[in-house]
Amino acid sequence: MTSISASATAGDLHDRIEHLAAFNADRAAGGITREVYSPEYMEACRYVAGLMKRAGLETRFDAVGNLFGLWEGTDPQAPRVLTGSHIDTTLNAGKFDGVVGVLGAIDAIERLRAEGVAPRRGIEVVAFAGEEPRFGQGCTGSLVAVGALTREDLDDLCDRAGHSLAAVLRGAGFEPDRLEDALIDPARYHGFLELHIEQGAVLEDAGLAIGVVTHIAAPHDLRLVLRGAAMHAGATPMVLRRDALAGAAEAMLALEHLACESPSGRTVATVGVVQVRPGAINVIPGEAELEVDVRDVDETVRDAVVDAFLAEAEAIAGRRGLELTHTDIGRRTPAACDTDIVEAARSACVELGIEHLDIVSGAYHDAMVLSAVMAMGMIFVPSAQGVSHSPLEHTDPADLDRGVAVLTRTLARLAA
Amino acid sequence: MTSISASATAGDLHDRIEHLAAFNADRAAGGITREVYSPEYMEACRYVAGLMKRAGLETRFDAVGNLFGLWEGTDPQAPRVLTGSHIDTTLNAGKFDGVVGVLGAIDAIERLRAEGVAPRRGIEVVAFAGEEPRFGQGCTGSLVAVGALTREDLDDLCDRAGHSLAAVLRGAGFEPDRLEDALIDPARYHGFLELHIEQGAVLEDAGLAIGVVTHIAAPHDLRLVLRGAAMHAGATPMVLRRDALAGAAEAMLALEHLACESPSGRTVATVGVVQVRPGAINVIPGEAELEVDVRDVDETVRDAVVDAFLAEAEAIAGRRGLELTHTDIGRRTPAACDTDIVEAARSACVELGIEHLDIVSGAYHDAMVLSAVMAMGMIFVPSAQGVSHSPLEHTDPADLDRGVAVLTRTLARLAA
Repeated sequence: MTSISASATAGDLHDRIEHLAAFNADRAAGGITREVYSPEYMEACRYVAGLMKRAGLETRFDAVGNLFGLWEGTDPQAPRVLTGSHIDTTLNAGKFDGVVGVLGAIDAIERLRAEGVAPRRGIEVVAFAGEEPRFGQGCTGSLVAVGALTREDLDDLCDRAGHSLAAVLRGAGFEPDRLEDALIDPARYHGFLELHIEQGAVLEDAGLAIGVVTHIAAPHDLRLVLRGAAMHAGATPMVLRRDALAGAAEAMLALEHLACESPSGRTVATVGVVQVRPGAINVIPGEAELEVDVRDVDETVRDAVVDAFLAEAEAIAGRRGLELTHTDIGRRTPAACDTDIVEAARSACVELGIEHLDIVSGAYHDAMVLSAVMAMGMIFVPSAQGVSHSPLEHTDPADLDRGVAVLTRTLARLAA
Repeated sequence: MTSISASATAGDLHDRIEHLAAFNADRAAGGITREVYSPEYMEACRYVAGLMKRAGLETRFDAVGNLFGLWEGTDPQAPRVLTGSHIDTTLNAGKFDGVVGVLGAIDAIERLRAEGVAPRRGIEVVAFAGEEPRFGQGCTGSLVAVGALTREDLDDLCDRAGHSLAAVLRGAGFEPDRLEDALIDPARYHGFLELHIEQGAVLEDAGLAIGVVTHIAAPHDLRLVLRGAAMHAGATPMVLRRDALAGAAEAMLALEHLACESPSGRTVATVGVVQVRPGAINVIPGEAELEVDVRDVDETVRDAVVDAFLAEAEAIAGRRGLELTHTDIGRRTPAACDTDIVEAARSACVELGIEHLDIVSGAYHDAMVLSAVMAMGMIFVPSAQGVSHSPLEHTDPADLDRGVAVLTRTLARLAA
């Protein structure tokens, strides 16, 4: 029965993913560019709201543009099940990140309706605004919903063009001055369930279609600056150099080693951004700036890796006559998924005869933000070659169907 | 006698350096920006031509804007002594690089005139155009003068704004279509002598004011690209990564080690430019591009270091599952200074009672270009803390006076 109704709507899901991909501000780049609150994003929201209405959901935007669609339960007083993700993208990104969780949730509701299910709890679909960090900070929509961003923050957070989040919200027709209206009342929710692409290659590596997330790792992000002397590349003997980039290279390798040797076996550490100044082929770098991201599901282990890294970087700087400074860009708290939601997802896999992997999310998601106020869980589908935030982002359609089937059955269990 | 005439004009030299520094397209940056053929550069040339005329020199621009000022000798048939440098700058640079060799040469001629010297050979002062690489390629003026740039090259070489050298030449009133008129006839020149700041800290480290250059090292410049997989920084375990930047860091340290261990003891190697793609804190670098500069006065040693580096980089890429490509940006041939000119400069130091250091130039100069067609030599004065191409570039006035005194006495010997 389940597999029949799944195939009955599966075509729609894939067509809708393609349709949503057409709301794109930069087709020439080859991928999808749909930054939150852009004209393309607003059109995409209207398209998704239309799908919600077709699925019989009662839609609304909150004050910061989080889009909700409610399927009322047979017991309107029972705390609802919230499910969804986001439909904004980074620059030149893929079709699946976030989108799968929103369109998949609508699809799941259509499947449940087709099965004649009448859930006791309401099921509410959400597309959170600003999961991707257009304004430097990710998850702005869900952070507002849990009360973690203030009105002042909306003035302080700016995009690359220098426009504040508050100004952009007003421009898009939302109401930054009515933030309190966007607050979620935790008492009204039973929990949050997010279907998402893995954005890593662990499932592919294991040859499995479904990951049931047990923990969400959280990053400690830092900015490291090494300063030496910007001297002439030809005229300065090796022994007289204070090369900031050479010191940075040594620090990067130390970080990689520390992550690989971490006692949890799950620490990851990345230097994703390097700026070299002055940045000329004939000048020894006088300054090297690194943006460093360290993650673990165990905050203690993560902090120990960061501390050891900073100590090694200090030692390297000392040996090379460099000056080291570092600042925190941000730190988040890892979150454990709710054991009842995890158990419901595992049981759904068993019911469907789909083998799953218990998995850790190394990426953070709106689910992590919501964990501050309610129970949450996540279901992962594979990302081909682990690629995400790229035009090459891909999830096999059959895997996606399995993901939506697991989401459907898990929602049915949670809403019963 | 010499020291008296030196102090008689020394004040002028320092005033003139300050005056020339006022021809500056970007005062706000704190340093000097006077790119070749810019309005500020052309004004500076007119100022220098005026000084040449005041010193009794017969001035002319050639077809690409190299500025010459001739003091005819008592034997007009005798090959002349050429001396000078350049007055263009990089962006936000210092007051001394190049300028010292042009204004110092004019000053030297004034000193010789004041002494009543009537040289047998003519002495010709030159300010070569485009020593700094506004058009990607440095030393364009001297390269044209020795016949190493073609008319087509002037169309191909473009500045940051995409303007070709040929178009900019025409805009400045010069004649790119009459390149042959800019060719130097080597038979008419006895040799070239260039006074220049060291742009390194070797003299300062040795506590000496004068370097007599014996060799000019030349760079082999390469671009290295490492390609891995741009995957999510959180979602990709360390063992599943193909991190292009981590591989680049390992390669950078290998290069540093190879230069330090080079058998000549004089190899220098620098990575001055790094580009990371996509360049986001939460994405493992999928691509890292390095611009690498390796120099030695011994071309065989230099090539061996480059070969060993590429072999190590290949091995690193192989271990890390990265793809490596490399292309030559350019290679120049090291040059030995003419032994007679070196000996004349050493003797001038002895005559003046100034201790000197025999030194290698790690930077290339117009003198290196001219070495293709005539004997050449260089005299270095110290750069405070080795800093160059920076607003902080500085040479102590007393050291500068010693440099001009050595230049004066060396010219007198060469022109006798």
